Amino acid sequence: MRVLETVEGPEDLKKLTDQQLTDLATEIRDVLVETVTRTGGHLGPNLGMVEITLAMHRVFDSPRDRLVFDIGHQAYVHKLVTGRARSFGTLRQEGGLSGYPSQAESEHDIVENCHASTALSYADGLAKAYRLRGENRHVVAVIGDGALTGGMAWEALNNIAAAKDLNLVIIVNDNGRSYSPTVGGLATHLTSLRTNPRYEKILDLIKKNLGRTPYVGPPMYEVLHGVKKGLKDMLAPQGMFEDLGLKYVGPVDGHDRNALEDALRNAKSFGGPVIVHAVTKKGFGYPAAEQDEEDNLHQVRPLNKPRGWTDVFSDELVKIGHRRPDVVAITAAMLHPTGLAPFAEEFPDRTFDVGIAEQHAVTSAAGLALGGLHPVVCLYSTFLNRAFDQVLLDVALHKCGVTFVLDRAGVTGDDGPTHNGVYDMSLLQLVPGLRLAAPRDGKRLQELLDEAVDVDDVPTALRFAKGEVFPDIEAIDRVGDIDVLKRSGNDVLLVGIGSMVATAMDVAQRLEAHGYGVTVVDPRWVKPVNPKLVELASGFKLVVSIEDNGRSGSCGDLIAQALRDGGVQAPFRDFAVPQVFLDHAKRAAVLQEIGLTGQEVAREITEQLTQHAGHAFNEPAGGRNA
Amino acid sequence: MRVLETVEGPEDLKKLTDQQLTDLATEIRDVLVETVTRTGGHLGPNLGMVEITLAMHRVFDSPRDRLVFDIGHQAYVHKLVTGRARSFGTLRQEGGLSGYPSQAESEHDIVENCHASTALSYADGLAKAYRLRGENRHVVAVIGDGALTGGMAWEALNNIAAAKDLNLVIIVNDNGRSYSPTVGGLATHLTSLRTNPRYEKILDLIKKNLGRTPYVGPPMYEVLHGVKKGLKDMLAPQGMFEDLGLKYVGPVDGHDRNALEDALRNAKSFGGPVIVHAVTKKGFGYPAAEQDEEDNLHQVRPLNKPRGWTDVFSDELVKIGHRRPDVVAITAAMLHPTGLAPFAEEFPDRTFDVGIAEQHAVTSAAGLALGGLHPVVCLYSTFLNRAFDQVLLDVALHKCGVTFVLDRAGVTGDDGPTHNGVYDMSLLQLVPGLRLAAPRDGKRLQELLDEAVDVDDVPTALRFAKGEVFPDIEAIDRVGDIDVLKRSGNDVLLVGIGSMVATAMDVAQRLEAHGYGVTVVDPRWVKPVNPKLVELASGFKLVVSIEDNGRSGSCGDLIAQALRDGGVQAPFRDFAVPQVFLDHAKRAAVLQEIGLTGQEVAREITEQLTQHAGHAFNEPAGGRNA
Repeated sequence: MRVLETVEGPEDLKKLTDQQLTDLATEIRDVLVETVTRTGGHLGPNLGMVEITLAMHRVFDSPRDRLVFDIGHQAYVHKLVTGRARSFGTLRQEGGLSGYPSQAESEHDIVENCHASTALSYADGLAKAYRLRGENRHVVAVIGDGALTGGMAWEALNNIAAAKDLNLVIIVNDNGRSYSPTVGGLATHLTSLRTNPRYEKILDLIKKNLGRTPYVGPPMYEVLHGVKKGLKDMLAPQGMFEDLGLKYVGPVDGHDRNALEDALRNAKSFGGPVIVHAVTKKGFGYPAAEQDEEDNLHQVRPLNKPRGWTDVFSDELVKIGHRRPDVVAITAAMLHPTGLAPFAEEFPDRTFDVGIAEQHAVTSAAGLALGGLHPVVCLYSTFLNRAFDQVLLDVALHKCGVTFVLDRAGVTGDDGPTHNGVYDMSLLQLVPGLRLAAPRDGKRLQELLDEAVDVDDVPTALRFAKGEVFPDIEAIDRVGDIDVLKRSGNDVLLVGIGSMVATAMDVAQRLEAHGYGVTVVDPRWVKPVNPKLVELASGFKLVVSIEDNGRSGSCGDLIAQALRDGGVQAPFRDFAVPQVFLDHAKRAAVLQEIGLTGQEVAREITEQLTQHAGHAFNEPAGGRNA
Repeated sequence: MRVLETVEGPEDLKKLTDQQLTDLATEIRDVLVETVTRTGGHLGPNLGMVEITLAMHRVFDSPRDRLVFDIGHQAYVHKLVTGRARSFGTLRQEGGLSGYPSQAESEHDIVENCHASTALSYADGLAKAYRLRGENRHVVAVIGDGALTGGMAWEALNNIAAAKDLNLVIIVNDNGRSYSPTVGGLATHLTSLRTNPRYEKILDLIKKNLGRTPYVGPPMYEVLHGVKKGLKDMLAPQGMFEDLGLKYVGPVDGHDRNALEDALRNAKSFGGPVIVHAVTKKGFGYPAAEQDEEDNLHQVRPLNKPRGWTDVFSDELVKIGHRRPDVVAITAAMLHPTGLAPFAEEFPDRTFDVGIAEQHAVTSAAGLALGGLHPVVCLYSTFLNRAFDQVLLDVALHKCGVTFVLDRAGVTGDDGPTHNGVYDMSLLQLVPGLRLAAPRDGKRLQELLDEAVDVDDVPTALRFAKGEVFPDIEAIDRVGDIDVLKRSGNDVLLVGIGSMVATAMDVAQRLEAHGYGVTVVDPRWVKPVNPKLVELASGFKLVVSIEDNGRSGSCGDLIAQALRDGGVQAPFRDFAVPQVFLDHAKRAAVLQEIGLTGQEVAREITEQLTQHAGHAFNEPAGGRNA
């Protein structure tokens, strides 16, 4: 019987022998590799978290003590040892386990987030709440060195440092990487802590003389700690954390479970916030992951994947780079995922990876633009949330010609509610002057990117979907900047937005089969609303917009405004993503669920046209507001 | 003739003698006090910036070298010495000088921002652009110690530390304060740099032996710098900045112009990013400001001000605090401006000022809520922009009962485009589950705050205007949660939102004078849209919403959606703030300009009713989209 099968919860871990725990770690790695290579998901980070997670659960008492995982995709091991080993095969499948912690799944999960750098703020709040309520509970936050580059983490550290009596342990899981290697002064500093040769030498000396690692339980620890403090000026491994007033313990070998447990026990007994610096290797124990230079199998995806939106962008940006020496690129720790790597290889001096730091990415882009360059800022749509204020004031108010390229826009599916890019168009609609484009296919992505980088007096943005790029749909006509894709009559005007243009074409075909005349247009630039669209709309019985952005403040809302302002008589109907948090499932399944399919949209339009011709209507399936 | 009258630009400063510069500093302080006590504006910060600004302009060559002021309200002295002394009396007046730097005013201004912590990111981008373009220009950023607590500043420092060859000088204007004293570990660390007794002792020793300040020009500087490096382990004043790999110079007396110039000259010649740590006193040279314990006359406002929205909130929260021991309050360096001070005095353990750190404020509130408390997060509306992602994912996705109280919502006026709180309602409309209230008067503010803190399963938000609270308007009826304030007929349904309810009442009176029957309602809770509102709307010839939020994604848009979904036949018209950056002027003047007055709204409605009864319409004055 495998050890894992005997572990129903953290209590069971506490009874295991050292050998059983070592076996368990191996079993867990086998399960991770076996499952994640099949279901997809985050492999490298979790392989690196095995010993840390076991040590956390053995030293602390979850759920009484609270464990907070920054960027929840490093919590798979935690799931395996908190009663979810048997269901682990359903990871990221519809109805199965989430790829992130989930309060609904387990009392051991509390923070479900997957946006980076939040764990310390949560932990600060939790610990302060327990202190105020007089509850003697510990809060343990695990954060990667990559996530420490995010400004939120700094804000939290600054506050935690001033709160001397919180029962709060921060484990810095330092693998030297975010998606790709961690950048910036902090990374250099952590490296200096890790690799300070004098420090290593002293540790060696101590080890040899005492025959143990430096962490062997409180009394010895105190002695050694005293020695270390005395040597501080020579060794100085605490560096900036102690400058801030934070107790620092480490570095500890993050794959040495006993050393980790000793360090955590000491941290637990300290009576104030402590940073435990654990050095790990992403992908540890799985040679294929350890040796993957690019990202240590950070996330596992199918091989031989078809050409995606990202690839089209990637190639086009390199072309632009050759033509336009003033074009520079910025990313926030996402060089490979956003397709910037080829540009970076060709133009290393013109590429800036700022780490997990979206705010700085955007405002430094404003600076680059004010300095005479044209920056292209490459982010996942969902991470634009982090930099709204910077886009609004630092870029747009200053009329900076910055181009934002938002990958993974719309419904992304598998990664759950926090990865869906369904807010970007609403946020960008708020930004005065900004021009927003939503390409329907690869060719339009190329065209619109070319047009965007030519705009230098206001910001521009492009947003496109995740995955395989859609087949090109050629226009049969153009009205102003608007592509007309189909014109079979004047019953319904379908306005397709970005990746939903293909759906609009499907809807049109279905409506035609019912005998309706349909015109399908793609405005290409969706902000500002093109006045020609209002002119076009006048002659129809019904005007419909379809987009995969959230319904509130959507393109549909802005089209509705324009139609009202223009005195257009035809009723208007908007299909968009309902303003709710969507559960994880494949993109197609989610779109089906929320009614954003050709079949469902066509059905609703037909119903409206037949039953209530010329009038306004009932709530659309894809358009409930929470 | 006063020296200031001879200064047309930075070049003139370079010709002045030491005595003339000392006289100039005094003259500038006189002008600041005289002008700002009359026009209103930021006094304390600028009194503290006199010597730093003079030194910057003497050592660097603006506009070739670029000077970036974090939170632009510390740039008054810069305005006075860059050709704007004669027009300085028009500060913050309509058509006059902006309270912030302005590209339109001067070639010496580049960054116009007033949201904190952005300067280092701008500077990083500018310096990188100049490096890439092969231009030998320096970038000088001035940032307060308070703004360094913001996460963006950390993101920038982390990146700047890794860019060894940038011509970038960062002046930390350390006055130990943001609005109120700076909080957190960083503040403690800066204090330790400032007050390290060993460091002071050594400096004294050096001064006595060398008869000068430590900064006396390059050769002596180098010598002393060598000495200082040798003493580093003992003195360690560089601390965390050098741990990050940043060159640190200081502390320098920020009111000793010669010491500052020496330090800046050395920093300029260093050939890489340098931090110059200048210790200043907010309000320096004006006893009334120096002695003001609360905020060193940070911002000057009229005395004997009437009871404001903030006061009503302030009193009510203290009452709630007595009744509800689980209610805690959080602010981001705005204890006094948001009216939290009385709560903090009564309940110091239950009040958390996190510094200029809106992201942490929001996510630590999520932690506090998950720990069993009910946090009330008090921010200016405009600063909510900084924490949208945290409200969305950290609070709302986790169903945390957090109450957001947004002061200075709507058109605020004098402080220009970056202070208008015209985005909050659009942002919050995007957040699933969140309930949003907009009180119309003081009594409603009390009621709605009481209701909000009773909601524990979703976040709630209240937003209210700046300045004097409006007289109470009592309801004549209630439909569900909706207050009916007037019912004289069924021609027009006016939906007033928050502070625009008073305007709606004014509109109603004017319409009645034209013989129309009007019903005025206040939904109180504006998100989600109350289904009763849709029912109510059915019987009218025209439905109108009035709000002082930006038009995109506004409450009006959501009401329009609900009316469409509900099949309401009546045409709908939304009056809101156009989606453009508004120039600074008094709130009333701005509202006049954008057509959000009773007179203008009534005029447009009358026109619509008389000319096109029953139809949809032309673009409203208050509803253009950029």
